[in-house]
Amino acid sequence: MIQTSIITIGDELLIGQVIDTNSAWMAQQLNKSGIRVARRVAVGDVWDEIWETLDQESNNADIILITGGLGPTADDITKPLLCKYFAGKMVVDEGALQNVINIFKNILNRPIIERNLKQAEVPDTCKVILNKRGTAPGMWFEKDGKIFVSMPGVPNEMKGMMLDDVIPLLNKQFQFPHIAHRTLLTAGVGESSLADMIADFEKTLPIHIKLAYLPNYGMVRLRLSSSGPAMQSIEDEIQHYFNLLQKLVKEYLVTNEDESMQQVLANLLVANNKTISTAESCTGGYIAHLLTQHAGASAFYSGSVVSYSYMAKESLLQVDKKMLESSGAVSEDVVIQMAKGALQSLKTDYTIAVSGIMGPDGGMEDKPVGTVWVAVGTSDKIRTEKFHFRFDRTRNIELTATYALNLLRKFILSNI
Amino acid sequence: MIQTSIITIGDELLIGQVIDTNSAWMAQQLNKSGIRVARRVAVGDVWDEIWETLDQESNNADIILITGGLGPTADDITKPLLCKYFAGKMVVDEGALQNVINIFKNILNRPIIERNLKQAEVPDTCKVILNKRGTAPGMWFEKDGKIFVSMPGVPNEMKGMMLDDVIPLLNKQFQFPHIAHRTLLTAGVGESSLADMIADFEKTLPIHIKLAYLPNYGMVRLRLSSSGPAMQSIEDEIQHYFNLLQKLVKEYLVTNEDESMQQVLANLLVANNKTISTAESCTGGYIAHLLTQHAGASAFYSGSVVSYSYMAKESLLQVDKKMLESSGAVSEDVVIQMAKGALQSLKTDYTIAVSGIMGPDGGMEDKPVGTVWVAVGTSDKIRTEKFHFRFDRTRNIELTATYALNLLRKFILSNI
Repeated sequence: MIQTSIITIGDELLIGQVIDTNSAWMAQQLNKSGIRVARRVAVGDVWDEIWETLDQESNNADIILITGGLGPTADDITKPLLCKYFAGKMVVDEGALQNVINIFKNILNRPIIERNLKQAEVPDTCKVILNKRGTAPGMWFEKDGKIFVSMPGVPNEMKGMMLDDVIPLLNKQFQFPHIAHRTLLTAGVGESSLADMIADFEKTLPIHIKLAYLPNYGMVRLRLSSSGPAMQSIEDEIQHYFNLLQKLVKEYLVTNEDESMQQVLANLLVANNKTISTAESCTGGYIAHLLTQHAGASAFYSGSVVSYSYMAKESLLQVDKKMLESSGAVSEDVVIQMAKGALQSLKTDYTIAVSGIMGPDGGMEDKPVGTVWVAVGTSDKIRTEKFHFRFDRTRNIELTATYALNLLRKFILSNI
Repeated sequence: MIQTSIITIGDELLIGQVIDTNSAWMAQQLNKSGIRVARRVAVGDVWDEIWETLDQESNNADIILITGGLGPTADDITKPLLCKYFAGKMVVDEGALQNVINIFKNILNRPIIERNLKQAEVPDTCKVILNKRGTAPGMWFEKDGKIFVSMPGVPNEMKGMMLDDVIPLLNKQFQFPHIAHRTLLTAGVGESSLADMIADFEKTLPIHIKLAYLPNYGMVRLRLSSSGPAMQSIEDEIQHYFNLLQKLVKEYLVTNEDESMQQVLANLLVANNKTISTAESCTGGYIAHLLTQHAGASAFYSGSVVSYSYMAKESLLQVDKKMLESSGAVSEDVVIQMAKGALQSLKTDYTIAVSGIMGPDGGMEDKPVGTVWVAVGTSDKIRTEKFHFRFDRTRNIELTATYALNLLRKFILSNI
């Protein structure tokens, strides 16, 4: 099987200043084309370490994809290093030069300086990949039957090159196997209990079908993976086992697609031609953000009142001032009034309201950090639930959002 | 210099199903303690590949930190592999067993099953690190003068172990150098122009001080890094160069701390004892989410109206229906009315209103995808600006949020 390694270059990756989202995206796209990523390595902007990593990875992999270190400044050393590694000399590439000039003249509208023109220089031992979204060209090298591709670290530039050029070119050069995955999401059951529930099933799986558990705080994703040369038989076989698996976990099944909770809810709303609104206190707009991340949200989503202050709860959601003072903002009474206020102002079929204490400060003896009240429902019927999360602020916000979306999902399903 | 490698284990990392946020966090924490991370490697749940990666990394590094693959299910093979790699045999650890029992009894409130008890088994060749937040114990191995630490992949469990045990233990065993960083953020100047602006300064930097450019779509972060045994001289020297650098870029300087745009704005508001609200259309709550990510937001933030529909703009922000129909939701007129509506309902000193087309659909000939109107200001004075972004939906939302926050920041500074 053809093996691929991804190398990302940059000191910022090794001091934790940025999170590497590029290699996850690359791995996803490669996987879809049947290209197996065996390793991902991040190294700093250090000559010897990059060199050694190129040696090491090309020992094991057939395809080595490299991102980062192609900027116009002195800390970017990938290009001179690759020039030496592949025994070339620097030459100006006419296509890359026209591209740089065009970007400065027509898009950036800035005067071009010497340093920018240097971006058009490449080792003469590479094939140039045009960068339609930026000034640093991609470079394709071949050596001892191995392929090395260097791309910029800027996400949208790298993504454009991968989709327009790199993956199509790899597909021309290699015959990749077909890879199939099936993923489902469960809620309300622990990883170990789930494992016991499907232990017999797991034993019957053919050796080439792998089962993975991806737990995420109370929700567990299960994934079946398989690969082989014959697409149809791979797909049929994995679907057979996936059908069995779904039956075994059906009590806890949220979705049989690899999709997020907000996508599951969005699909449910669109299928039933219903709309929702949200009234958020502690999640501070995060539920609204999740619901509007994907295009098409306006079909089912009207908006949110992010009522971070008492004032906002009173003026935009008509929450009773006395109730706020007597019950406190984190209470069943208030969250019900928030839900009713949102339904009234935004005139949607359903709503979600949340109020809680996300931490690290603000906890009280009877309402510790992690206490959350959620209300979901319609103008006729509201259902509430109290949660206790015990993580950090970021994680508490994420969990509140996901559990609130799931609560509305269950409400809709049990009231259809 | 002591070198560290981070190994993350899990097929999900190699098919791009999850983004690896663990190693960025680990690198950040290690860096603070003077522990240099030289490489980060991600491998799948494949016996030979994990084994080989352990060999390879321990060839170069002195400390090898491993996360993932410690769950109770069959796809988790890290523990048996480490048992074999360090020539041990599995034994029940009494402390780990009590911990598992305690978690099931007192926190999860679920019956304990055989599979969970197995979590308390560890190779007898390791020192156990108690996991206060979960059932999988951490394991500390030493071999040929190298240290290997295995931790669970669940973020809050790993984080707890790192801070409570792993970093303190490493600090006992080694004498790490002092590492110093200084980071500033610029806006409104390209990477190349910035590089030209500070080229002479860059030449005067001592060899042990590194300058890095971290461009992020129109904003560029500059970072100086240094390390050495004597804390005070390292700090004094880097501060000297950082002061010079700040002077050179002062026209474009947003902050001289390693902080986000929303933190810069939050600090400015708190320092002046001012409040803000937001009225968001296209960003769908993302600005509110950024402002409430950090604790203490209630000191300056009142809330947001996420007006995704015309209805929401009319009922919650008093936008004129006729204006919506004549000018369209993405227009200077509407965004001004949104700002005024938010100021009126939420009674804050300042507000930010945004309306735009994030894509991929919804573009028109005169308003292509990426067109955004932003209004910032007070009840006396509103400033607007039109932006054109040219990325994907996610990136357009992020950029709109950051540019809108920066516009308010500049408005406040020029009106104080």
